[in-house]
Amino acid sequence: MNYSTPSTAPEFSVSSWLNTNEDLTLVNLRGKVVVLHAFQMLCPGCTLHGIPQAKEISRVFGGNNLQVIGLHSVFEHHEVMTNKALKVFIDEYRLPFPVAVDNLHQGSKIPETMEAYEMQGTPSTVLIDHLGRVRFHHFGQISDLQMGAHIGNLLAELTASRSN
Amino acid sequence: MNYSTPSTAPEFSVSSWLNTNEDLTLVNLRGKVVVLHAFQMLCPGCTLHGIPQAKEISRVFGGNNLQVIGLHSVFEHHEVMTNKALKVFIDEYRLPFPVAVDNLHQGSKIPETMEAYEMQGTPSTVLIDHLGRVRFHHFGQISDLQMGAHIGNLLAELTASRSN
Amino acid sequence: MNYSTPSTAPEFSVSSWLNTNEDLTLVNLRGKVVVLHAFQMLCPGCTLHGIPQAKEISRVFGGNNLQVIGLHSVFEHHEVMTNKALKVFIDEYRLPFPVAVDNLHQGSKIPETMEAYEMQGTPSTVLIDHLGRVRFHHFGQISDLQMGAHIGNLLAELTASRSN
Amino acid sequence: MNYSTPSTAPEFSVSSWLNTNEDLTLVNLRGKVVVLHAFQMLCPGCTLHGIPQAKEISRVFGGNNLQVIGLHSVFEHHEVMTNKALKVFIDEYRLPFPVAVDNLHQGSKIPETMEAYEMQGTPSTVLIDHLGRVRFHHFGQISDLQMGAHIGNLLAELTASRSN
Repeated sequence: MNYSTPSTAPEFSVSSWLNTNEDLTLVNLRGKVVVLHAFQMLCPGCTLHGIPQAKEISRVFGGNNLQVIGLHSVFEHHEVMTNKALKVFIDEYRLPFPVAVDNLHQGSKIPETMEAYEMQGTPSTVLIDHLGRVRFHHFGQISDLQMGAHIGNLLAELTASRSN
Repeated sequence: MNYSTPSTAPEFSVSSWLNTNEDLTLVNLRGKVVVLHAFQMLCPGCTLHGIPQAKEISRVFGGNNLQVIGLHSVFEHHEVMTNKALKVFIDEYRLPFPVAVDNLHQGSKIPETMEAYEMQGTPSTVLIDHLGRVRFHHFGQISDLQMGAHIGNLLAELTASRSN
Repeated sequence: MNYSTPSTAPEFSVSSWLNTNEDLTLVNLRGKVVVLHAFQMLCPGCTLHGIPQAKEISRVFGGNNLQVIGLHSVFEHHEVMTNKALKVFIDEYRLPFPVAVDNLHQGSKIPETMEAYEMQGTPSTVLIDHLGRVRFHHFGQISDLQMGAHIGNLLAELTASRSN
Repeated sequence: MNYSTPSTAPEFSVSSWLNTNEDLTLVNLRGKVVVLHAFQMLCPGCTLHGIPQAKEISRVFGGNNLQVIGLHSVFEHHEVMTNKALKVFIDEYRLPFPVAVDNLHQGSKIPETMEAYEMQGTPSTVLIDHLGRVRFHHFGQISDLQMGAHIGNLLAELTASRSN
């Protein structure tokens, strides 16, 4: 695991939040490990692998130390992956975590948060440590064993920071 | 396996055909085993289990003896599971078989083919033998071993019919 | 599925039967579909794929129409894959079907039933129809969907034979 | 993850080492994370889940920072799970890590290392940190995500210790 040169995670650019009572910001999440899972609702790599893994991460590790956030980063077929459709998706797939709708600015097909994080596509998973720094970034499928190790790594740092 | 009292399969009531150059009818499919796979594009039981199984059935058995047909039977959230969205779904999930859009008549939420086959929900799989009779009907997930056996059963009858 | 030129299945050559109260013969099994699953207890392809599949076949289809038979065909490391060890294996893996110990004759490393069926290794699965003929023969892993179809095929023939 | 009251890991009591050129001791492994995987070669929970997971851990994390060690802790059927049989098992299952044969003392069915670690059965996995302390102990199956997190946790501590 190479965690060299961590950089501060860019703040989310979000047009709306779903599946949560309050808007989230990275600043307010400081002190927690954040698992940012970028997906598109009609991407099979997301529904078959990424989303089930994100749900399991939330179930096992979600709470005071870790927050999973779904990021709906639509960069194609915008006309059918609407917020209305996303709400149905969240409900049917029983997503247990907040979902941010990545903000699309005029004249671009790539939404802003996706661009800021330089994501190559969906699914993409970004791990942000308790200090708000990007520590892991992966496009595509990744094994549970490896994902678990990256998460455990950051949780250990969080624990260590509290005992200092 | 209990194949008692097979009844003639109702003809499809379809508003449009996708992923095929020609409209299909059960009458024209007589002589083949037909695997009718009813799904909704935002149903997780479909994307996670039903659709992958239907794709594998098509890959292994599809051809002169067997035809897989997808049936998009929307009975909820009609406003987001549109034909436009379905076209993206078919493309992204690389469905290798024709997809019929189940016909929705005025004043009903349940589309007509779904109603004619008395399906309880999605995913539902119906097996129709080479004589056009319903021989197996299943709502929900079913193991590959059992699905394979039902298919093998009907393929054997087809083979036997040719040698008589 | 190509079931050309079926030949009569050679009778088992067995040094002892385990996990059953009575010795089985193909002659006595006539009228049933027989799934002959050849394995070695220390073969990973067997423990990871073949044995779980054979157990599931027995659970789903075993009974008046179908009989699963395990065949311990040791062709290497004979000194450690003994009957004593096999009894422990059968117990620990909770095999629900009779297990025949393939007979090893003097001067050969390949046991007799394995040789008679011209098996290439383990796991090997042989399907024998209700008339006692070899109808399918596979070395290595095979998908549940395909295995199910082969079984369904033979069960259909059995059903047809009874209604004639 | 509760890592309270870590205690020094008891040294292995081993009758022989297999699959390695040198005997290993915990003292010499100080500075590495050690994954101790206790198994019995005829235990299905081991061959189906524990051993594949231990192999994957070794493949992904094995090296300067982490050492997987197999521990053959036979507590039943000693007469068939011999070293001779174990050698075949190691070879057939292509185990990529050293295997210690847990030492059986006179008059006991439970081997000594198993007893010292108070293992309840097989498979059992024990994680020992770079300071030689038991930090995780699990009997039975555990998900890759959770196992990965425990490993990542200890690897993070190892990394932190080097940068201090």
